[in-house]
Amino acid sequence: MRTIWVEPDGWSVGAIDQTRLPHRFETVRLATAGGMARAIQAMVVRGAPLIGAAAAYGLALAAREDASDAGLARAAAMLAATRPTAINLKWALDRMTAALLPLPQVARAAAAYRLAAAICDEDVAINEAIGRHGLPLIEAVARRKAGGRVNILTHCNAGWLATVDWGTATAPIYMAHDAGLPVHVFVDETRPRNQGASLTAWELGGHGVPHTVIADNTGGHLMQRGLVDLVIVGTDRVTARGDVCNKIGTYLKALAAQDNGVPFYVALPSPTIDFAVDDGIAEIPIEQRDPAEVTTIAGLTAAGAVETVRIAPEGSPAANYAFDVTPARLVTGLVTERGIVQPTRAALAAAFPERALPRAAE
Amino acid sequence: MRTIWVEPDGWSVGAIDQTRLPHRFETVRLATAGGMARAIQAMVVRGAPLIGAAAAYGLALAAREDASDAGLARAAAMLAATRPTAINLKWALDRMTAALLPLPQVARAAAAYRLAAAICDEDVAINEAIGRHGLPLIEAVARRKAGGRVNILTHCNAGWLATVDWGTATAPIYMAHDAGLPVHVFVDETRPRNQGASLTAWELGGHGVPHTVIADNTGGHLMQRGLVDLVIVGTDRVTARGDVCNKIGTYLKALAAQDNGVPFYVALPSPTIDFAVDDGIAEIPIEQRDPAEVTTIAGLTAAGAVETVRIAPEGSPAANYAFDVTPARLVTGLVTERGIVQPTRAALAAAFPERALPRAAE
Repeated sequence: MRTIWVEPDGWSVGAIDQTRLPHRFETVRLATAGGMARAIQAMVVRGAPLIGAAAAYGLALAAREDASDAGLARAAAMLAATRPTAINLKWALDRMTAALLPLPQVARAAAAYRLAAAICDEDVAINEAIGRHGLPLIEAVARRKAGGRVNILTHCNAGWLATVDWGTATAPIYMAHDAGLPVHVFVDETRPRNQGASLTAWELGGHGVPHTVIADNTGGHLMQRGLVDLVIVGTDRVTARGDVCNKIGTYLKALAAQDNGVPFYVALPSPTIDFAVDDGIAEIPIEQRDPAEVTTIAGLTAAGAVETVRIAPEGSPAANYAFDVTPARLVTGLVTERGIVQPTRAALAAAFPERALPRAAE
Repeated sequence: MRTIWVEPDGWSVGAIDQTRLPHRFETVRLATAGGMARAIQAMVVRGAPLIGAAAAYGLALAAREDASDAGLARAAAMLAATRPTAINLKWALDRMTAALLPLPQVARAAAAYRLAAAICDEDVAINEAIGRHGLPLIEAVARRKAGGRVNILTHCNAGWLATVDWGTATAPIYMAHDAGLPVHVFVDETRPRNQGASLTAWELGGHGVPHTVIADNTGGHLMQRGLVDLVIVGTDRVTARGDVCNKIGTYLKALAAQDNGVPFYVALPSPTIDFAVDDGIAEIPIEQRDPAEVTTIAGLTAAGAVETVRIAPEGSPAANYAFDVTPARLVTGLVTERGIVQPTRAALAAAFPERALPRAAE
């Protein structure tokens, strides 16, 4: 099963409703570009690679509605505005627009569906390649520990739910597990939206991968005690020099990894690299979401209902920054579809020469 | 109002039920040493200084029941076993036992109540002194920012609820606020038990101190953006060389503070110093609590009921380490009742010479 697909009607788009997991498995049917924009904004679909694919299908839906240059531009702007941080959204919309605008209007909708499908297929292939390049990192630990458990810590969800299939950070983990290596994953619950506990734990459990859910506060302690061999996370945007923007709290785990000599890897498809941006802290816009995501939480009651409860005092304000930036100096390596790349401008440009931009001398 | 008191009957002990905050304000009446032990274990009363005071009253209740040497020893062992990490518990029990055993059995109960009351009064005085010594740290930032908001980040609850009154980390904050300084507190929600959102935000709101609740993942991002002037936290045990054991996640914030040049202060009453322990990571036992504290959470429903909901997938295991250790190298200063002390063996021994132990040459 993939996270996004074209329905049997041949044009409407289906997706797993990720706001309902882990307590309910439901799918949604999206029939308009506006509906897709709302689904991305509300995180019905989420994860940098998946929102790229979703935006592509959003533009395909838009092309059915109004395939004029102005119509596509309006739809692209609407979709781009849903979430500011993950660059995959802009990457997919730019790619779609560049491919569609030269075509006659009558041909645009069909071409848009073909290209959206190609973007999805590419994402699956990219993640499979990330898995192959990341697997040796886990194999090396397994050899060193001679049969002992390989403990991997991850943050948020960079699993198959965050992509079209396989996942980025999880691709090497699934391959290692399938190959019989004794992997075990510490899953940061990832407040405030709990994508770790809700999505990553659900994914790993479904695949039979041993795992333990922990509060986000816990990773540093585990690393101090030697209980983490490897950190692998995903990312929403990597800059030309290798700064890594990812779910809020990633930076804290990278600091702890460095302080304890634990390798800290970031898995990403190359569309996540933004060669137009250099200093992640200064230049990447950090989405601020509804404070209610901090002050309330949804869960399953004893009676089996999903209910939202308030966990902060009435009247206490909250802030909800969705991402942070881990400076390149804290990153051991970037696991891409072309292999493991050092988080430096030179290494990234060498690995992806067709995308790197010329820079003024520094 | 204090957090713990003797009821009008003259012998049973009242306390605020901290498991019910922030949604309900309720008190409990404890009439036996066993009841007090259960209240400490269940965190009805919590916070290192407060569980010291609670254990003292627990031993007073025990002395009413059986004031023999064996009876007191049994009660002290039961109370000491409730929570392993905060040293104040052992400190209070040792002090009580040492004072009671020389007395005739018939005089022990009355003496126990007097000493427990003295321990409470001392705690209030100590916290007031911590506030006076910590206040200049906030005043200095306020002068530097010339009227701009002084942003303080804190973790967990080291407020008046964690002590008998005033709090440790909050004492300077309350004094600064009362003096008209523009303080604002970023309150880590502090998963899994959410003492920040439940207790610290409730306290600060009740006192009118401006504050913002944040997910535990957020502090690093705020510090990167210059939004934190000062970190002040409490502690459950400080070692002879200045390692700081505190609520899980404190270490991550200390790393972020160091990485961003933000001062990181720890406020503590001297009974929290364990001069018998040196290496916090190797020597302090870290409590592991029920994984259900991670996989479920209690909150207020729309209908106004307090309900516990499950937030992780059924069948996903969880781990619940309650504390971590921040190495002394990450601590800017220890705010004690005798002033700000450097986190070094020499400085701690000089500040508290009557408690420091002789050490073999190193």
